[in-house]
Amino acid sequence: MTAQPRFAVILSGCGVYDGTEIHESVLTLLAIDRLGGLYRCYAPDRPQLHVVNHLTGAVAAGETRNVLVESARIARGAITDLAQFDPAECDALILPGGFGAAKNLCGFALDGAECAVDPATERAVRLMLAAGKPIGALCIAPALLARIVGDRAELTIGNDSGTAAAIDKMGAHHLVAGPGEVVIDTAHKIATSPCYMLDSSIKTIAAGAENTVRALLTMMGR
Amino acid sequence: MTAQPRFAVILSGCGVYDGTEIHESVLTLLAIDRLGGLYRCYAPDRPQLHVVNHLTGAVAAGETRNVLVESARIARGAITDLAQFDPAECDALILPGGFGAAKNLCGFALDGAECAVDPATERAVRLMLAAGKPIGALCIAPALLARIVGDRAELTIGNDSGTAAAIDKMGAHHLVAGPGEVVIDTAHKIATSPCYMLDSSIKTIAAGAENTVRALLTMMGR
Repeated sequence: MTAQPRFAVILSGCGVYDGTEIHESVLTLLAIDRLGGLYRCYAPDRPQLHVVNHLTGAVAAGETRNVLVESARIARGAITDLAQFDPAECDALILPGGFGAAKNLCGFALDGAECAVDPATERAVRLMLAAGKPIGALCIAPALLARIVGDRAELTIGNDSGTAAAIDKMGAHHLVAGPGEVVIDTAHKIATSPCYMLDSSIKTIAAGAENTVRALLTMMGR
Repeated sequence: MTAQPRFAVILSGCGVYDGTEIHESVLTLLAIDRLGGLYRCYAPDRPQLHVVNHLTGAVAAGETRNVLVESARIARGAITDLAQFDPAECDALILPGGFGAAKNLCGFALDGAECAVDPATERAVRLMLAAGKPIGALCIAPALLARIVGDRAELTIGNDSGTAAAIDKMGAHHLVAGPGEVVIDTAHKIATSPCYMLDSSIKTIAAGAENTVRALLTMMGR
């Protein structure tokens, strides 16, 4: 392990309705920096499921955008194709939320518990599990971990009963959590927090991101 | 004045190279919330100067995006056309940076000291000046205030000598500032901070945004 703990952050586009939730992403990066860590952003090089006009909420017909290219906006250009992810280069992995996690990293938003997972995302998560390194996920991103990990892993997306039931159906185990709270599964080394899955102001999102990063640091013995 | 101080935040797209700098925007919203304020986001309804691929840095030929529609990504959809800005509905105005402030809110990035200003942006700033309400600006956004205000207003964009000279040429007065520092002109009620105009990590951007919001609160007697 290097002097500073290294976090890989997987982004899924840029904007809550078709990509990564921007506040959760930025506040994850802030928490990592404030707690003494280093971050490196990744995203899969694939088309977004669709483009949503965030002013109207409507799907922008005929428009296509790329997940890696749009995620680069949040990363200020400093981003790596997720296909190149190497678990030796990080000490923990974290996935902010937003519909991108359920539309671009997996198909949960459309297909629920039967969803397919983006191959680069699944590879990165499985490599981290095999390496025994901790994984964090915010908002709806824990649904993706439920699909990959199963195994009664304890996860939270807040308190939405439909999503919670789908998480249980995928073989994980949902626990209700409140604003800013983190569910920590020490056996699987997974930490999750509801963030914008609960109606919260941005300072509560900052708390959720910071508490999740802190839990990952604890699981890596920091 | 309502119980909580109200901040209008002017966005200029979504992404440092063709819109609002995302970290500066989110950390401005976080600072407002943490310091007890309320925010409302605005952006002009006009086409972006251009679209930049943030992965490669190249201009995306033939692609067009709208400033208000893209800014809505940062605002999670809760955004108002800047043409509807009413100074009676806020106690302070703040402009995060990013090239959008110098490409979409004015033409400074291309035309320097001779640049034109977006009419809705100029109107909002002039209405705040006339109302005697404070204005904050981060990163390159102070160049826009220099163009509108002039009058030897004391501003900072950090320490870039070319930009500083242009600010002086537009009739304002540039002062050098370091990471996280704020230049406060109490006569004009303007607070500015360099943010990403200086090579900084994200926690320093958070400090710059928070110090600027704090200066605005002080100028409104809070």
